[in-house]
Amino acid sequence: MNNKPDWVDEGWIVLKHARFIAEGCEQTGTVEEAIVKAASGKEYPLAEIDVWLPPIRPGKIIGLALNYADHAEELGLDKPPEPVLFIKPNSSIIGHKASIVYPEGATYMHYENELAVVIGRQARLVQAADAYDVVSGYTIANDVTVRDFVNNYYRPPVRAKGHDTFGPMGPYIVDKADIPDVENLNLRTYVNDELKQQGNTKDLIYTIPELIRFISAFMTLEPGDVILTGTPKGISHVYPGDVTRLEIDRLGALENTIVDGRKTKEIKEELTGGRNP
Amino acid sequence: MNNKPDWVDEGWIVLKHARFIAEGCEQTGTVEEAIVKAASGKEYPLAEIDVWLPPIRPGKIIGLALNYADHAEELGLDKPPEPVLFIKPNSSIIGHKASIVYPEGATYMHYENELAVVIGRQARLVQAADAYDVVSGYTIANDVTVRDFVNNYYRPPVRAKGHDTFGPMGPYIVDKADIPDVENLNLRTYVNDELKQQGNTKDLIYTIPELIRFISAFMTLEPGDVILTGTPKGISHVYPGDVTRLEIDRLGALENTIVDGRKTKEIKEELTGGRNP
Repeated sequence: MNNKPDWVDEGWIVLKHARFIAEGCEQTGTVEEAIVKAASGKEYPLAEIDVWLPPIRPGKIIGLALNYADHAEELGLDKPPEPVLFIKPNSSIIGHKASIVYPEGATYMHYENELAVVIGRQARLVQAADAYDVVSGYTIANDVTVRDFVNNYYRPPVRAKGHDTFGPMGPYIVDKADIPDVENLNLRTYVNDELKQQGNTKDLIYTIPELIRFISAFMTLEPGDVILTGTPKGISHVYPGDVTRLEIDRLGALENTIVDGRKTKEIKEELTGGRNP
Repeated sequence: MNNKPDWVDEGWIVLKHARFIAEGCEQTGTVEEAIVKAASGKEYPLAEIDVWLPPIRPGKIIGLALNYADHAEELGLDKPPEPVLFIKPNSSIIGHKASIVYPEGATYMHYENELAVVIGRQARLVQAADAYDVVSGYTIANDVTVRDFVNNYYRPPVRAKGHDTFGPMGPYIVDKADIPDVENLNLRTYVNDELKQQGNTKDLIYTIPELIRFISAFMTLEPGDVILTGTPKGISHVYPGDVTRLEIDRLGALENTIVDGRKTKEIKEELTGGRNP
């Protein structure tokens, strides 16, 4: 795995806005290569950041199911005739390096690497042509899902996707102006350094402007709201002890460790069988 | 319809916490019979309240589908084996007397009269026996739904229930201590003064303590979060021009008018046919 940030040679300055704890204080600042410049003026090497907080505290988080054709196909589902939305509770959000809890009753947890669009202004009835005007920036989100919990009649995936810690986000927000090629970013997910998922935002079924048009047609978007644009093909089981590393071009890498939240600490052999894939 | 508040003779003082606009100012205060006592010390007769704001700005709103057996039956659905949750976006909230928008594409909009439980403290892994400790009060919510929009594969009801204006709430919050009989409150819904829906919170499939236990087992409840406990039997079509009045014992009455948000103002005759019921 190549840890060299892939934006270094791109020829434009990227400001990466982070919230973090260093020296026991909750702070904001910008990440510039290997240094975090705190709003206070102090500078911290990355290694001196004690905790990466989620870069935003979203008002609401709007998720997209089935927004990459290859992912719909791997689940054996048709392309949806319109965007399939769900709301992810904001209490599920954690930051870079925080732990994802593997809960009691789960047998099939997986990551979902997603481009997260951060809304910058209140917006209703936005035309697709104007959609980027309401965006302030982008970050990486892991729409962690326990597929066991999806299967109820109505299928609103609150248990499946709303568990505390199921919303890693970060490590920071990059300004919209610094991502002119947002419709052509590669996504890569590694589990324990093994490449498991690859995609590109050019393959979104519903593009960012189309999503903003569709959502704002019936729902006010507010500053700090976040749209999770969906995940490409390549989901797979993860288990306690695994480390997920989600990369998106120019947005860095979001890394989290899965810890065991089950009452029994025995990870049963049979968990690995039975479920697809 | 009897407009006399039904808590008057109950022998305990009920403080009803409201947010409102009077004399051009956004204010908070308590409603005591026909007077609103503003935090500023000023008193307003009810008629001098210009706008009733939602009594709370919820962090997250957790809705319950199918939590009264008679309502599940009227939809032709089985009692769920566990609480069926969805998240209602906080952007959908409006106050008492505000307008509900009948959107383009709707043919079957209905009200859902629900006891709303307001959370007062951060809570995780709460036992049922301690559940009321995390509740601060109660209000009335109308979980407005356009059933036409429910039918997608995953069925997370974001379009059906998340439209701006689909979350009337209020008129005020009553402190928990003033509602000792929360498990035995009558709900009544009137459309244009005609009684359409009746129920009692004693018929909840999953009670308030069970819901708090179930939800907090995987999701942190935060001060200001709201749980909508579900609606009893008696949903029916509403159309632009209709006035919904939702009453719950001791919580007052939440009244809203439906206005036409469709591009065409013609309310087609055929809207009334076809859909059940």
